[in-house]
Amino acid sequence: MPQEHLLIIGSSEQNPDLFYATKFIAPDPFVFLRIRGRKYILISDLEIDRARKQASVHSVVSTSSLAGRFRKKFGRVPSLSDLVMLFLKDHRVKALTIPSDFPYSLALNLKKGGIRLACAKIPFFPDRMKKTGTEISAIVRALRATEKAMAEAVKILRASTIRKGLLYSDDTPLTSESLRRVIHHTLLEHDCSGERTIVSCGRHSIDPHDQGSGPLRANKSIIFDIFPRDCRSLYYADFSRTLVRGKASPKLRAMFKSVSEAQEIAFGLIRDGVPSGKIHNAVLKHFEKSGFETGLKNGRMQGFFHSTGHGLGLEVHEPPCIGPGEDILKKGHVVTVEPGLYYQGVGGVRLEDLVLVTKNGCRNLTRFPKFLEI
Amino acid sequence: MPQEHLLIIGSSEQNPDLFYATKFIAPDPFVFLRIRGRKYILISDLEIDRARKQASVHSVVSTSSLAGRFRKKFGRVPSLSDLVMLFLKDHRVKALTIPSDFPYSLALNLKKGGIRLACAKIPFFPDRMKKTGTEISAIVRALRATEKAMAEAVKILRASTIRKGLLYSDDTPLTSESLRRVIHHTLLEHDCSGERTIVSCGRHSIDPHDQGSGPLRANKSIIFDIFPRDCRSLYYADFSRTLVRGKASPKLRAMFKSVSEAQEIAFGLIRDGVPSGKIHNAVLKHFEKSGFETGLKNGRMQGFFHSTGHGLGLEVHEPPCIGPGEDILKKGHVVTVEPGLYYQGVGGVRLEDLVLVTKNGCRNLTRFPKFLEI
Repeated sequence: MPQEHLLIIGSSEQNPDLFYATKFIAPDPFVFLRIRGRKYILISDLEIDRARKQASVHSVVSTSSLAGRFRKKFGRVPSLSDLVMLFLKDHRVKALTIPSDFPYSLALNLKKGGIRLACAKIPFFPDRMKKTGTEISAIVRALRATEKAMAEAVKILRASTIRKGLLYSDDTPLTSESLRRVIHHTLLEHDCSGERTIVSCGRHSIDPHDQGSGPLRANKSIIFDIFPRDCRSLYYADFSRTLVRGKASPKLRAMFKSVSEAQEIAFGLIRDGVPSGKIHNAVLKHFEKSGFETGLKNGRMQGFFHSTGHGLGLEVHEPPCIGPGEDILKKGHVVTVEPGLYYQGVGGVRLEDLVLVTKNGCRNLTRFPKFLEI
Repeated sequence: MPQEHLLIIGSSEQNPDLFYATKFIAPDPFVFLRIRGRKYILISDLEIDRARKQASVHSVVSTSSLAGRFRKKFGRVPSLSDLVMLFLKDHRVKALTIPSDFPYSLALNLKKGGIRLACAKIPFFPDRMKKTGTEISAIVRALRATEKAMAEAVKILRASTIRKGLLYSDDTPLTSESLRRVIHHTLLEHDCSGERTIVSCGRHSIDPHDQGSGPLRANKSIIFDIFPRDCRSLYYADFSRTLVRGKASPKLRAMFKSVSEAQEIAFGLIRDGVPSGKIHNAVLKHFEKSGFETGLKNGRMQGFFHSTGHGLGLEVHEPPCIGPGEDILKKGHVVTVEPGLYYQGVGGVRLEDLVLVTKNGCRNLTRFPKFLEI
């Protein structure tokens, strides 16, 4: 959409499109406009000097100077949409393209002011899906930190002792919480920040998004899912492994084998232009053929009931989705490949790598080895 | 708004109203409805079992079962708004109240489907401003962790040596980055997570939101602004101190004294029912009277050019604002009191405490002492 006028309003800490457009991070809402190819930020005095130094836009405009002009002209305190309207009038703009998640009440005010609004399709900036070299480096940096954090967790698990089915480190029971903390400290050492990292064992691991809590058990699956953000670039990584300290049951071992195979099947299909549904269906079919059924059982979903993967960048989950939908993978996309199986009474298994889609295939960005028992 | 039907759609990781309404944290968007006093969540199979365990709602509904019914009836794949429309029809709902930041395109779809939409005022849940005992405890927990992190930073500064105007710890130069890291590790030890903590020295400290970078200098002001989130409750704390390792200039000392006095003036005015503008104006007037002017100088804002404080809870910045606006402080609000002064060639000074508004005054929740030179 090269010639449309664009408007985003939000906090760039919360709105990755706004950060992508401005490269400026601020906690409070500000206004971004792209008019005839020129980028503008309207922002408060509190942020204006920092914005002038840091934002990659053509012009940073003070909302308080706009507000002063508005008060002089109309004799009342302006709202945020009043300020935007004043600026649009200055620039003779009568139509705007806004993101689909643009705040409803602001949109209504702009329409009342006579502005024609067009809602952009998702994603607002399609280029955000295709990662540049710099973006890939940022993701890989976060991924290497993640692998170092995982290595710390593995070291502790390996050195742990087993007593009555529970794991101990120097006489202290190992828990989901204690390993999560080790992971988060290691991430911090590498300028990454982790939140809600999953370290879930046994019955907790059968719920893919259960964070895990309490003592870690021997001979049960432990799912690690770590998705930190690089503090400097704000790009994410995403990574999962499944481990058993001790001996895995034959069923768990078979699940691990099947999930590994599913990943390889996906790797083999991913390339520029492939419909994501083709990959997801191949994974589903593989699980079925291997005897791992998906569906409601005892009132809860079991088997493989999430998508095969998702795009990653300034969000942990961003387009494209490798699921039952219509998304097409393109050269330059960075996506997760994370099939999983979850059965009550057995446990969960998930393996997740990050890959870069290339013209003829994909490049696995993840280096951490895959093994089940330690 | 007791009898309206409410709708929120979003990710509760991003949308504090959604988390407040459901007490359920999920990374991907889901639907919350309150219909005739009953709370519902519509959510994917991936999250449904966790939602049934954790969400504080009356009923958790599977979007895939709604999608199955829709496909049977209409022969096509439903969008998210199709699913919401189906559910609304089941419950004979024709009008909804939505938040002012509700996604524009979803609102348009619901209107096309014949639903009347009313936009709620901000805040969507006015009760969110009045903190319960549990919420206050969560905030205080995060604040105590913050004070421990600050104490670690002070310990390192005190033990530092000064060479050619720079600070060293065991022969390593102390930097904004290294102290920030110490603070973040300490926060993690107390199950809090800090991001973008400000440790800004000298010329960096004159920009209130500059994070700070590079070597820390002796005899210059260093602003610490720490605003971590408690990982369990998701409530924030917010805290600032200004320190000088060595000797502060007379101007810096006068600024510190004036900022301390401004805080005391604010504490003296805060009580149930007071207009926030009265507090903010008193702070402004105090600075003027003490000879600390505010305005553009050498092309940048100097003096006191941010608000005196803001509400805090599930967001670092939430209503009410203690600024030039119309907000009224009420018993149960938890707000920051953070006057500051910033002058080119001198440095910045900010002091920030968290207080609970009470019937006849306020209770300072912050315990960390205030001193300038160490």
